[in-house]
Amino acid sequence: MKTAIKPTRAENFPEWYQQVVLHAEMAENSPVRGCMVIRPWGYGIWEHIQQELDRRFKETGHVNAYFPLLIPLSFLQKEADHVEGFAKECAVVTHHRLEQDAEGALVAAGELEEPLIIRPTSETVIGASFARWVQSYRDLPLLINQWANVLRWEMRPRIFLRTSEFLWQEGHTAHACKEEALEETLRMLNIYADFVHDHLAIPVIKGLKCSWERFPGAVDTYTIEAMMQDGKALQAGTSHFLGQNFAKASDIRFINRDGQRAFAWTTSWGVSTRMIGAMIMTHGDDDGLRVPPKVAPVQIVIVPVVRDESDRQSILEACDVLRSRLSAQRWDDQPVRALVDKRELSGADKKWYHIKRGVPIRVEIGAREVLASTVSLSLRTEPKEVESSTVEHFIHSVSQRLQGIQDRLLEQASQRLLERTITVTSLSDFKRAFEEEQQTAPFVLAPFVDHPHVEEGLSGMGVSVRCLPLQQTGDTHHCLFTGQPTQTMALFAKSY
Amino acid sequence: MKTAIKPTRAENFPEWYQQVVLHAEMAENSPVRGCMVIRPWGYGIWEHIQQELDRRFKETGHVNAYFPLLIPLSFLQKEADHVEGFAKECAVVTHHRLEQDAEGALVAAGELEEPLIIRPTSETVIGASFARWVQSYRDLPLLINQWANVLRWEMRPRIFLRTSEFLWQEGHTAHACKEEALEETLRMLNIYADFVHDHLAIPVIKGLKCSWERFPGAVDTYTIEAMMQDGKALQAGTSHFLGQNFAKASDIRFINRDGQRAFAWTTSWGVSTRMIGAMIMTHGDDDGLRVPPKVAPVQIVIVPVVRDESDRQSILEACDVLRSRLSAQRWDDQPVRALVDKRELSGADKKWYHIKRGVPIRVEIGAREVLASTVSLSLRTEPKEVESSTVEHFIHSVSQRLQGIQDRLLEQASQRLLERTITVTSLSDFKRAFEEEQQTAPFVLAPFVDHPHVEEGLSGMGVSVRCLPLQQTGDTHHCLFTGQPTQTMALFAKSY
Repeated sequence: MKTAIKPTRAENFPEWYQQVVLHAEMAENSPVRGCMVIRPWGYGIWEHIQQELDRRFKETGHVNAYFPLLIPLSFLQKEADHVEGFAKECAVVTHHRLEQDAEGALVAAGELEEPLIIRPTSETVIGASFARWVQSYRDLPLLINQWANVLRWEMRPRIFLRTSEFLWQEGHTAHACKEEALEETLRMLNIYADFVHDHLAIPVIKGLKCSWERFPGAVDTYTIEAMMQDGKALQAGTSHFLGQNFAKASDIRFINRDGQRAFAWTTSWGVSTRMIGAMIMTHGDDDGLRVPPKVAPVQIVIVPVVRDESDRQSILEACDVLRSRLSAQRWDDQPVRALVDKRELSGADKKWYHIKRGVPIRVEIGAREVLASTVSLSLRTEPKEVESSTVEHFIHSVSQRLQGIQDRLLEQASQRLLERTITVTSLSDFKRAFEEEQQTAPFVLAPFVDHPHVEEGLSGMGVSVRCLPLQQTGDTHHCLFTGQPTQTMALFAKSY
Repeated sequence: MKTAIKPTRAENFPEWYQQVVLHAEMAENSPVRGCMVIRPWGYGIWEHIQQELDRRFKETGHVNAYFPLLIPLSFLQKEADHVEGFAKECAVVTHHRLEQDAEGALVAAGELEEPLIIRPTSETVIGASFARWVQSYRDLPLLINQWANVLRWEMRPRIFLRTSEFLWQEGHTAHACKEEALEETLRMLNIYADFVHDHLAIPVIKGLKCSWERFPGAVDTYTIEAMMQDGKALQAGTSHFLGQNFAKASDIRFINRDGQRAFAWTTSWGVSTRMIGAMIMTHGDDDGLRVPPKVAPVQIVIVPVVRDESDRQSILEACDVLRSRLSAQRWDDQPVRALVDKRELSGADKKWYHIKRGVPIRVEIGAREVLASTVSLSLRTEPKEVESSTVEHFIHSVSQRLQGIQDRLLEQASQRLLERTITVTSLSDFKRAFEEEQQTAPFVLAPFVDHPHVEEGLSGMGVSVRCLPLQQTGDTHHCLFTGQPTQTMALFAKSY
């Protein structure tokens, strides 16, 4: 069968991914190793992700602010685990100008007294502000979010999934007591899970990271884990309960209701452009991307099909009228996003262009459709069906159709997650699940005790502990690696 | 007279500015010299600026994308004037990790083969992408915008006005012919001028920069210049016609309609968080900031005044009901932004808090107001008046009141610009205009020829050529510095 993307998913999933990113014009590698250019189609999806997350953050009382890109080396060192976790991937600014050397070549000059780090994350620099802003219990909770770029030097970069520079949001909050900070940590985890489920049509498993997978400096890290089509797990967002670690490192103290000075309790949480990679690997097929309508920059593309030049005028007019009427419709609390593709390209070129980009609905209008007041309709989720509909019916059904596509994508992904998640209680079953030669890896739930033996036992298998799911049955089993009895199951998987 | 900000504008304008930024909680200096923290109130204003500009960019066919933060040194060197213009203010990344030295101190390690520059602007790195994306005339025009942080190392930083790191948008476009690129350059200049006028309530003078004030590498730079309350000019936005300079540097070529290979014509244009500084220095008074309602994160603050605890419940309820009814009103195509301030603070503290931040309308509701179904109303532009209004009347008049405040701010700024702009045609008048000991400097229109003698003649005066206004009378005069006849008047001023 002819497919628009070669190789197919079954032939070579990682290479298929790169080709989809390329053909859908989502992003490309830049001349700086590990940094990407996010092209308009990819960035447009990011804008819709931002818009909805931002709405949810504000609805729960958070406000946006902006903190410096550059962090003094001494700041990073304030929290010992934190600096150890990030030291190997820091881009370091050492000079503040360029000058010509004796041979006329430009070289770095103006050496800084203290090197500056491009933020890999902003706990330490935001902590310094929080220490100034928080004086009294009246200043708490402090609920701040930042949309920003961050940089973590990557030796093996993969576009969207692991890039040296990436875009993200990082929430940082301070609270008067532990309970409130824990509540916030879980509130944000739930916002992430709901957003990814409702908008990206990706079902996730919510859970706690085990001790060796924690964010450097955190007390607890919560995660949402999604299954890609090759069965690998992708961490799609994390929410950290930082205890008083960073409050102590940055001296965030306040006078509490009893008149005592106390350290604040802080949290941080983030999602990044990595989510776009998760979206591609969850919904893409062998013809390219399939974008969930809720985040599609264009939900409906209208393609004029002109076979006879004398029809051009009336066909283009019909397309414009349809676009304008569709834009007056609302779905998901927003105007429907429709576009007429008037470029000088053949019909076939246009068709594949939009299929590869994953536009949810494609409409063609030619002379026959104009005469009959109909449209020729293709849904990206039903590649083999072309439907004829009256213009009126199409307009009235458009929100239902968009919702149908959104639901269909979620249903397919949920089905996959369900089918491929297995529970094992013996080490031999565990090894068989991952060792067998197979197209796709499973998600494996197995009894777990948080002990270094588990990490050692997994070494060389290419499998990691993704999380301790929040949902547990409570049955008692024995940990596969330590043999200790436990009521906790962990999720194990290969991962990105 | 008691003022909330000390010193007053008349006493010390630069220090007044710093104090307003501080008291309004707009921003603060960060531990990294020259970099600022934009606090939620300042960032909220920036979000409204972004939202409206983004809408105008998209309405004119532009799409957003994202390009790397880091630029290889060799890229910057591709355009000779460009690198010369930015070499002295580049932050240079030379290493990609940290490691412990013999004494256990963390030091930069992993030296890069080629140093990387943190983008001071993105022409060269975006040019590399454009060269790949543009193949045929069908790919043109290419209309791209980026919202990003940039870094230009500042020796004498001033918050919002001149910071090492700042936030901005940079538009980059490529066109098939010169005329289209020129048209785009002016279209964006007009969008900036209209936005600043309509939303920030700041009147501007549109004009062309003289040769020595051009953007490094541009053929022509257009600017909008605004007058601050001390009479200094502030460049609030620029739009550059780049000719084929950057197309040649980055090899942006395409096959034109005649089948010939040709270089594209490019433009770039940008505005930054500097506009927030312009807003403060245009509208602030001795009690703090006055925010134009169109960009105010909170347009109406509702303050409950509880003198007797038994009234608390009914007062808070009345406040919430009012807020909810105001939010259902629309102005400037958006829901009205109202907030109830329920913090545990005294009435006086709350009052001054919101005055200093420049919230356009302040409403107080106490027991008496609840009984009478009235509100006690203060407009930030009419500091001495407190008005009593029925709740019904207030709700129905709210959009008119917001528009009234917006208009009033623009009117005051326009009046100032008009009164303080003078025309001189002799060098002695010119010198007198700037040399006299006075609180505020004027904007001076004087005959001008683009010649190095002018730059030399101005040296030591603290005055610069702001622009050659697009509006000209066409009368002939003699240039004050070269003596040559000219029909061009230039705008001269002291500046930020």
